[in-house]
Amino acid sequence: MTTATNNAKEDLIRLLGKEKVFTRDDGKLDLGTFDSYGTDRTKVYKPNYQILILPETTEDVARAVDYAYQNGIAIVPSGGRTGYAGGAVAKDSEIVISLTKMNKIVDFDPFLGTLHIQAGMITKELHAQAEERGFYFPVDFAATGSSHIGGNIATNAGGVRVVHYGLIRDWILGLTVVTGKGDVLRFNGEILKNNTGYDLKHLFIGSEGTLGIITEAVVKLTKPPKDIRVVFLAVPEYKNILEIFKETHNFSLPLLAFEFLTDYCLNKVKEHLGVPDPFPAPSEYYVLMEYEISEESDEEKLFAILESITEKELITDGSIAQNTRQNQTFWKYREGISESLSLAYTVHKNDISLPLRNMETFLYDMQSLLSSKYQGFEIALFGHIGDGNLHLNIVKPKELTDSDFFQKCKQVDPEMFQLIQKHKGSISAEHGIGLLKKDYLVFSRSQTEIDSMRAIKAVFDPKGIMNPGKVL
Amino acid sequence: MTTATNNAKEDLIRLLGKEKVFTRDDGKLDLGTFDSYGTDRTKVYKPNYQILILPETTEDVARAVDYAYQNGIAIVPSGGRTGYAGGAVAKDSEIVISLTKMNKIVDFDPFLGTLHIQAGMITKELHAQAEERGFYFPVDFAATGSSHIGGNIATNAGGVRVVHYGLIRDWILGLTVVTGKGDVLRFNGEILKNNTGYDLKHLFIGSEGTLGIITEAVVKLTKPPKDIRVVFLAVPEYKNILEIFKETHNFSLPLLAFEFLTDYCLNKVKEHLGVPDPFPAPSEYYVLMEYEISEESDEEKLFAILESITEKELITDGSIAQNTRQNQTFWKYREGISESLSLAYTVHKNDISLPLRNMETFLYDMQSLLSSKYQGFEIALFGHIGDGNLHLNIVKPKELTDSDFFQKCKQVDPEMFQLIQKHKGSISAEHGIGLLKKDYLVFSRSQTEIDSMRAIKAVFDPKGIMNPGKVL
Repeated sequence: MTTATNNAKEDLIRLLGKEKVFTRDDGKLDLGTFDSYGTDRTKVYKPNYQILILPETTEDVARAVDYAYQNGIAIVPSGGRTGYAGGAVAKDSEIVISLTKMNKIVDFDPFLGTLHIQAGMITKELHAQAEERGFYFPVDFAATGSSHIGGNIATNAGGVRVVHYGLIRDWILGLTVVTGKGDVLRFNGEILKNNTGYDLKHLFIGSEGTLGIITEAVVKLTKPPKDIRVVFLAVPEYKNILEIFKETHNFSLPLLAFEFLTDYCLNKVKEHLGVPDPFPAPSEYYVLMEYEISEESDEEKLFAILESITEKELITDGSIAQNTRQNQTFWKYREGISESLSLAYTVHKNDISLPLRNMETFLYDMQSLLSSKYQGFEIALFGHIGDGNLHLNIVKPKELTDSDFFQKCKQVDPEMFQLIQKHKGSISAEHGIGLLKKDYLVFSRSQTEIDSMRAIKAVFDPKGIMNPGKVL
Repeated sequence: MTTATNNAKEDLIRLLGKEKVFTRDDGKLDLGTFDSYGTDRTKVYKPNYQILILPETTEDVARAVDYAYQNGIAIVPSGGRTGYAGGAVAKDSEIVISLTKMNKIVDFDPFLGTLHIQAGMITKELHAQAEERGFYFPVDFAATGSSHIGGNIATNAGGVRVVHYGLIRDWILGLTVVTGKGDVLRFNGEILKNNTGYDLKHLFIGSEGTLGIITEAVVKLTKPPKDIRVVFLAVPEYKNILEIFKETHNFSLPLLAFEFLTDYCLNKVKEHLGVPDPFPAPSEYYVLMEYEISEESDEEKLFAILESITEKELITDGSIAQNTRQNQTFWKYREGISESLSLAYTVHKNDISLPLRNMETFLYDMQSLLSSKYQGFEIALFGHIGDGNLHLNIVKPKELTDSDFFQKCKQVDPEMFQLIQKHKGSISAEHGIGLLKKDYLVFSRSQTEIDSMRAIKAVFDPKGIMNPGKVL
């Protein structure tokens, strides 16, 4: 540890109290735990940092950032560390500020239906707090048991019900942030309407900690769906998936999720998680639909939808889950894919989005690219197809070593990103940019946009201390 | 006209063609029409400008702005000029760029349900274009027959169904803007998910033309409500209004609008627009609710809601409109207020928002303020109460001259804005800041926020040529 760090440690203890400041070698946390605060699920970067701060209030955060700003010390904001883009990795001796202790409710407004919470609240806890008050917070995904709401906001999280509820951006009414200058900005979350100048809140949503630290949020709540029905469909051709999706537009039943997977993916789930076959005969593609059911007539609507897509010969088979257990099985076909793949294969993940109408030609181009230049590379294809969001995972061929495979993937990526750009898609639908996709940002944003982003970063973080090296 | 302007005129004709460039004295437009392009509905500022440009494409706009940027000439972007804050006033010899000819459809995506349009399309035309394609664009308000969609976006328009559909911000997927440097930024509207750096689009929404000119938009569409029911309620006490609103949360029937007015307002509408009494006995307050009805069981839900609020003695009377004509009458009670007031009185308008839970104490404080310091001032109170949005109109006492009245209002405003700030509201819910409320921005945004806004403006408009003097 350098003298600078020693000074920083003592200064920060003076500012915040010693129970909120930890160092790698102070023996207060075991090394594994200490390191875990400086990394995420990306696993390609090693944490390397000395000072961890666990603030309890926005004022604590402001004091710490102000100190860092005065002394030009870099900061990594740390939430639930469930990201896949290296956005929360501290690998260059930054100070890590983890919001893990900032998990309290600040306020509840029953008229607006909003909860004001500290940003370190675990997403699942927010679900529970909403439920306790007769409300529902609809942003949901696999990692909600450990992700923080602040991290969700900083990465504009999506999840499985975006097709109905939108991204988390749509559920944030107010934010409190500490900028890279240590200033506290409180974007009013008490009111629905406030047309008084630029909506700065939206800059911080999805900024991956590069402008400041989100310390509190006012989230909107809604009413929970009364009941749901999960439907699993066998779809013979890719183009039918889009036709089925379009068909759902013709019915007023609320479609909560519209997911898809290939037979390749289903086989991996069956193989590794021991789930039964959904249908007697296999199919090239499968679609999972989840519908909200409020009353008896909704069941009839659901039958009408299935009848319509059956009559149009868009599916070869289909089944409505009859109970909660079967709901879970159907969801397992889709949500078990990542786990099954990680159990037995080396995988290179990509999380991309495309206009639905360009998806088929993109997939065709992508297959051509792989078969012409990367023989043996197989694609595990699944995702939130209703949102145009594909999880395009490339599975390592047996004959390649891991390092050869990842080396090859580094060549595939820019070629794939070029295809995505050509088809007007995004190189990162949900996972963000972080460290991992920084070099490829130009495939989704123009140089003028990137220059503007840098200039905006300089407004809130003139010394570049907030999560340096991420995104921009 | 100065030599500079003469040069500008000739240069712009060279750049754009003479059919797109107009001057005050070229005789191509009568003076009234020419002037109308440089003003809005505020009526307190006089237009004073020499050059009007009517571009047809984003490239036209970019060429004009680039020229203005190179030569340091100020620009006022002009849409349908229906604003109430002076945001579209050209009073200091700016060039006016009106998007009135940019009213074409660029693209339609039936999968996403989006329309890509030029920003000069009239809002009502967008409604029609959506309907023609089996969709619905839900942002609606009195001025949609003349307002442009670009102006709606630049002011983050709301309207009568925000309580259900949100503000226009929620319906914008993509934007094309020309910045104050003449750069064209195209924020991808082809995809729902794109977590690749800062969402700059949201900065331009609600920026009132101070960062650049919105030239195209990709708007999301939804499905139209199958049917609606309009309900009018007599409410004896203010606090009951909030109780009724809370009660609506307990039912799954979609509430499209929740509006209120005082007896004072209803009397003005009856007096000047010749509508019948809604109920045999008058009431201190009235509430208008509009519900979406999709099927028969929804009618039962509506009855259940009315039964519940009747049982709880929250209303003294209530009526469900039985046909389209009655729908219109009920809406007239609410939407006829502005017209009735303007027919017979001098009025000082305010469009504010407050947390619903603070509304009652705010109104009490406001009444105390008026009766202690501004005797004879009466308040016409109505608005989108479900959104916490009040139209607080102060009606001139007979004994005051117009100029004395407005002088007094200038004293009332900051005192009222202080109350709004104390109760955590906004000094401008929908109308924006423009010229009219610029001096009062500090009552809704902190100095640090305002400084950040100025610095962000400098990123996109370094020479300060975009709508100078507005907002900041």
